[in-house]
Amino acid sequence: MSVTAAKGFKAAGVTAGLKQSGDPDLALVVNEGPNLAAAAVFTSNRVKAAPVLWSEQVLKGGQVSAVVLNSGGANACTGPLGFQDTHATAEKTAESLNSAGHDLTGGHSAAMVAVASTGLIGVRLPMDKLRPGVDRAVAQLSPHGGEKAALAIKTTDSVHKTAVVEHPGGWTVGGMAKGAGMLAPGLATMLVVLTTDADVAADELDRALRAATRTTFDRVDSDGCMSTNDMVLLMASGASGTAPAPDAFAEAVHAVCADLARQLVGDAEGASKDIRIEVTGAASEDDAVEVGRSIARNNLFKCAVHGEDPNWGRVLAAIGTTSAAFEPDRLNVAINGVWVCKGGAVGEDRELVDMRYREVRVTADLASGTESAVIWTNDLTADYVHENSAYST
Amino acid sequence: MSVTAAKGFKAAGVTAGLKQSGDPDLALVVNEGPNLAAAAVFTSNRVKAAPVLWSEQVLKGGQVSAVVLNSGGANACTGPLGFQDTHATAEKTAESLNSAGHDLTGGHSAAMVAVASTGLIGVRLPMDKLRPGVDRAVAQLSPHGGEKAALAIKTTDSVHKTAVVEHPGGWTVGGMAKGAGMLAPGLATMLVVLTTDADVAADELDRALRAATRTTFDRVDSDGCMSTNDMVLLMASGASGTAPAPDAFAEAVHAVCADLARQLVGDAEGASKDIRIEVTGAASEDDAVEVGRSIARNNLFKCAVHGEDPNWGRVLAAIGTTSAAFEPDRLNVAINGVWVCKGGAVGEDRELVDMRYREVRVTADLASGTESAVIWTNDLTADYVHENSAYST
Repeated sequence: MSVTAAKGFKAAGVTAGLKQSGDPDLALVVNEGPNLAAAAVFTSNRVKAAPVLWSEQVLKGGQVSAVVLNSGGANACTGPLGFQDTHATAEKTAESLNSAGHDLTGGHSAAMVAVASTGLIGVRLPMDKLRPGVDRAVAQLSPHGGEKAALAIKTTDSVHKTAVVEHPGGWTVGGMAKGAGMLAPGLATMLVVLTTDADVAADELDRALRAATRTTFDRVDSDGCMSTNDMVLLMASGASGTAPAPDAFAEAVHAVCADLARQLVGDAEGASKDIRIEVTGAASEDDAVEVGRSIARNNLFKCAVHGEDPNWGRVLAAIGTTSAAFEPDRLNVAINGVWVCKGGAVGEDRELVDMRYREVRVTADLASGTESAVIWTNDLTADYVHENSAYST
Repeated sequence: MSVTAAKGFKAAGVTAGLKQSGDPDLALVVNEGPNLAAAAVFTSNRVKAAPVLWSEQVLKGGQVSAVVLNSGGANACTGPLGFQDTHATAEKTAESLNSAGHDLTGGHSAAMVAVASTGLIGVRLPMDKLRPGVDRAVAQLSPHGGEKAALAIKTTDSVHKTAVVEHPGGWTVGGMAKGAGMLAPGLATMLVVLTTDADVAADELDRALRAATRTTFDRVDSDGCMSTNDMVLLMASGASGTAPAPDAFAEAVHAVCADLARQLVGDAEGASKDIRIEVTGAASEDDAVEVGRSIARNNLFKCAVHGEDPNWGRVLAAIGTTSAAFEPDRLNVAINGVWVCKGGAVGEDRELVDMRYREVRVTADLASGTESAVIWTNDLTADYVHENSAYST
């Protein structure tokens, strides 16, 4: 049910013709209220696509009535004209919703329409196709449109990704995500829209969303590459009439984010393994995250996992490049539960490690404290190279 | 002529039997004086192999009479017993040189024998093979042994690497290098031995070597992975009887290092392209280096180059992850001389870019100052994945 699992939302996914394949490429999610509270986190890349710059402004007001998302073009590095295209997309969406008689006190305005784009960088969007696409999406808006919207934001994703948590207290958090490559923290190449019918104000949405992304989407590091376009948007309609306890709400948002983040890892371009790196015994959580990311970004380690080779030396070499607190001769490393490295040297027999399955678990014990963190990544494969060596051609 | 191009040095390369292939795997370079001055730089990885810990101690005295290098085993993460093996290797080398009547006032001692190792991490060296190998190497020492020594330090190298600068002033700097993967700054997986017959004291050797490695070996970033074993050693015999001007000497050391560094890039595992990334218009050299490394480590960019795809969006996305001074809408990027990105947006026609040849030149102009730096890297290929997914098995 995706973004329409929560009451108060309609969605649509249509083919505007931005993709040469003819696959759906334009999604629209509309909040019908009674509330329009919203919060979002954006890529921390300093080179930001036009829709990110636009939506950052929209979110400053804490209210979003609709979000329009296109695949088939990132609208990044397109200069002032690209920004005008984003602005025009928001204007067009508001106009089309108003023309269709879509309910909103005072009418829809561009200032409350968030925009998200994904696809190739450095190419203008074909606005002559996008505008009629918006009209088509508005015409098809439905309280059952969540799946279609999730399909329309796919790029190289092999499957669409949705998640829902229905709280026994009578409110729901649902969401959809796209992302299959260029996955690195802060954020990854992902577009995520979350919706809830809980009655939650914008500042509490913001707190819950930042807490959730910090330990979910921000700890997925498929290939160390950070995009220009990422957005995770959370909209609250209040249509359930229930204002949940902050902790319960934060937990539900976290659960939906964790579910979607795990789906992103599982669908990473060309990957044959999902690697869960848990760093334990760290002096601080920051240390644990730094070490986890260093391992996750080590191409030699990622190749070794692809070859089902429990080459723990590469884990130690990666740990050694960090500034985390540790003593080299106290490091311990387990792969799939076998402690192949103990005290910085050879541990249990590496022949005992079974790496046949898709999920591989690495534990790096820094033996320097009690903090820990989990980072997810993928192996590096020839398929990854093939998919990404001919992406824009 | 490699390490024996300079007068006062003998070298050998033999098969000790450390490699299953039966290829040469033990090299020895002996300084016959009259001087024994030496300097070295080592990996900045905090997980250091036993031979690195040993040789760091040896170099504190500023004098090295011999260096013994083995391929076929890194002797890293092997604990106290591994360190004992390195110590025993130095002792054995000194004893064997003394037994063979090798000239040195006061005799050779382990405290002046540097040791270097390269190969798989986490495996003890077979000392029963290594000891007789040292005897064999001592027996074969020759003033023409430089090539054999260079051959014996190869691991996955497809060719051995040597370089020589003969200064018209009557002195010479020569060297050999091994390295084909795990190449990242500070240092890369490389073993380098440089020799000179110039009469230069240890502190001046140290200055010249650090200045040279900072802009050569430290700016090669083939795959972002830093090793536990790297060493660049410079030994001066003084046998030419000439004490060169410091600048001339530093220039010669730089030239040999630059030559060897370029050879490392050209032989990187599985690579089909050598990529020269020049960052210009930077506010500081540190900014230029940070941006260059960020581009060099971007797997998506490296895949695009492999596919001969001038995907400049990935260059901008990489720049955007740095803390360097720049404005996104003033960035310019050229690929092989074509300015495909101007002012952060679309520039010249990307169809004009010809990427058929092995060397690819990327220029990233930050438009924020006058500093610059060059970083070398390689493309990411399916062959790289294949070579590194079955390395230790």
